[in-house]
Amino acid sequence: MGNKQENLLIDGFQFAAVKSGIRGKDRLDIGLIVTEEPADAAAVFTTSLVKAAPVLLGMERIQSGKTQAIMINSGIANACTGQQGMENAKMSAAMVANSLDIAEDLVHVSSTGVIGAQLEMDCFKSVPRLVESLSKDGLQNVAQAIMTTDTVPKTACRSIRLSGVDVKLVGIAKGAGMIMPNMATMLGFIMTDANISADALQTMLRKSADFTFNRITVDGDTSTNDTVMVMASGKANNERIEGCQTAEAMLLQQAITDLSRDLSRQIIADGEGASKLVSIIVNGAKTDNEAEMAARTIANSCLVKTAFFGQDANWGRIIAALGRSGAQFAQEKVAIAFDKVFLVKEGLWLGQEAEDKATKVLQQDSFSVSIDLQAGTSHCEIYTCDLSLDYVKINADYRT
Amino acid sequence: MGNKQENLLIDGFQFAAVKSGIRGKDRLDIGLIVTEEPADAAAVFTTSLVKAAPVLLGMERIQSGKTQAIMINSGIANACTGQQGMENAKMSAAMVANSLDIAEDLVHVSSTGVIGAQLEMDCFKSVPRLVESLSKDGLQNVAQAIMTTDTVPKTACRSIRLSGVDVKLVGIAKGAGMIMPNMATMLGFIMTDANISADALQTMLRKSADFTFNRITVDGDTSTNDTVMVMASGKANNERIEGCQTAEAMLLQQAITDLSRDLSRQIIADGEGASKLVSIIVNGAKTDNEAEMAARTIANSCLVKTAFFGQDANWGRIIAALGRSGAQFAQEKVAIAFDKVFLVKEGLWLGQEAEDKATKVLQQDSFSVSIDLQAGTSHCEIYTCDLSLDYVKINADYRT
Repeated sequence: MGNKQENLLIDGFQFAAVKSGIRGKDRLDIGLIVTEEPADAAAVFTTSLVKAAPVLLGMERIQSGKTQAIMINSGIANACTGQQGMENAKMSAAMVANSLDIAEDLVHVSSTGVIGAQLEMDCFKSVPRLVESLSKDGLQNVAQAIMTTDTVPKTACRSIRLSGVDVKLVGIAKGAGMIMPNMATMLGFIMTDANISADALQTMLRKSADFTFNRITVDGDTSTNDTVMVMASGKANNERIEGCQTAEAMLLQQAITDLSRDLSRQIIADGEGASKLVSIIVNGAKTDNEAEMAARTIANSCLVKTAFFGQDANWGRIIAALGRSGAQFAQEKVAIAFDKVFLVKEGLWLGQEAEDKATKVLQQDSFSVSIDLQAGTSHCEIYTCDLSLDYVKINADYRT
Repeated sequence: MGNKQENLLIDGFQFAAVKSGIRGKDRLDIGLIVTEEPADAAAVFTTSLVKAAPVLLGMERIQSGKTQAIMINSGIANACTGQQGMENAKMSAAMVANSLDIAEDLVHVSSTGVIGAQLEMDCFKSVPRLVESLSKDGLQNVAQAIMTTDTVPKTACRSIRLSGVDVKLVGIAKGAGMIMPNMATMLGFIMTDANISADALQTMLRKSADFTFNRITVDGDTSTNDTVMVMASGKANNERIEGCQTAEAMLLQQAITDLSRDLSRQIIADGEGASKLVSIIVNGAKTDNEAEMAARTIANSCLVKTAFFGQDANWGRIIAALGRSGAQFAQEKVAIAFDKVFLVKEGLWLGQEAEDKATKVLQQDSFSVSIDLQAGTSHCEIYTCDLSLDYVKINADYRT
């Protein structure tokens, strides 16, 4: 989304990335984010029962609400690696703590890549080099170092004014496959110079994630490593935010949500093999839960997603997905629109002219599918992408 | 599976198929199955909330337990077609009743194809011609007439001995996409000359379907039209079966299950774009429900299915699917085998030699993936196929 380098500067943070060898000689594969002082921090993690070692470690360390460094590697996920995996996670974190001369439990590690392989600890000999090269303008490189099947680095920034001072937020994310709701659907790191307590930050992050990172799906799969972390350096010197109910807190909440949505959309747009960014909107559901079930069932249907790829306004597959979603509705009341073009009303096809118009909508890179169930007042929006030949090619070849 | 024509003869039944024009001039697209006398009959239908007109009509008419004719068309599903769709279904059934000179409510209709389009009633002018061409050896043609994206007709037969007489069962099925558990996952028609009550037949069909047609998945989608029907002509003159608890009843139950499994496997083997037939077996689950959730989540994971296509023994994607399935287990206890080759024990990879052997297994056209959760004693088996480039090609082009 064309964020210029200077937009990614953020007060109180330094960044670095190296080619450690995990992914060969020529790829940045370890990134580091460091704050001058211990930052207030919060995180949300995968809901998968199978959690990677760095996730298990992170869940423990985030309890303190303080973090000073995050090291992220790509290439190997350090998931399903048993006791040795946990030792490796702790050891690599200790190496960072050593080089930075800070307490070990202020260091988080995060991994993404192949499941089941052990980290080569030799690669972490590059940690001192990583620490030496820390700089204010290194975030773009970190965004690059954490990519796996991503084709572009994902960065975003926002600025707001709180209690008379400028507050900034920047974020990076990665993730293009094995992506699906239910928490933290990929790796995301948000940095702000806001002055805010870890508790308030945790509440805000959870809320934002539920409406952004948890509302996207590439292939319905949830990873063992999904993590979104936020760190606040406090350098903006706004009046410290302790709760979530003040006007200032709400402004910050909104900015975190905005930034998260921006990153989420970048992830979907870069979904493995994706050529279409599609927003699935279900209105008129009986309950919030049914709205979500309906939207998710459509968003994850292979048949619906291949129809998007084929630029086919195939409402039959949409209504078939609705029928098995578990949502309650009367089929003779359903309306379906592509952007603003209605193709179905009262459960019936509106004819060839409408279909031709809808087909034009599907030729766009990005569009919405709106469903009105006319069964209540609940709604839900989920972002998805098409299922393309390239998705299959990428995943038949790549070992995640 | 190479059933010879003579194997499909069954006492008391006649069959016919025509090129009615629904699918152009050169394709058989309507099939007809007729018994000499009203047959005892049973059926299971889609669990989708969105049910096609012929399904709604069939649910009503099967109540009587008697059926004498089933007409099936391909090309148009007569789903989401409102009141007119229901009128068309009734009218086409009435035309069959007229030509055969039997009661209207003894006639079932069944449709498969594009959702949302209305049947062209002109095509049913071929009904008298269809009835005239009824013959004992026409079942193969009916199997052909009901195909959509299927590449081969699917037929099967079984013989058993009940109370000293030979009893035969034959069956046909169709379905290659929009296939997923929870009842009737496609169209299937089973014919037997057994003498059995409709009630016993209904109990047996439900039980068989739960372990066969409901245990296969191509793409996780459930159709609006799924139907499996069974008709018994009684011509074998075995002692009439009224309940399900006798030894004879159990033999027949077993034969129906066998035949259904045979047809189910043919459907998966002919899954849209499928090049691999894979049996997912989950053992050691805490409950039957968790065993099924775990097996289904793996069987429907796009990432797992593309790995099958890539002949990649990617156990990381399998364990990731397990992790989000909702089944409870300890990741450090899980074992995973491809056929009899263990690749994971106690949650850990067994090394390159095991991997090389497992990769060889994946090069076969058909194999099993066994998971032991070591959390209990429940198990479940689900049949699935790979997700291939051809699946995407077929579904990006074909309007179902």
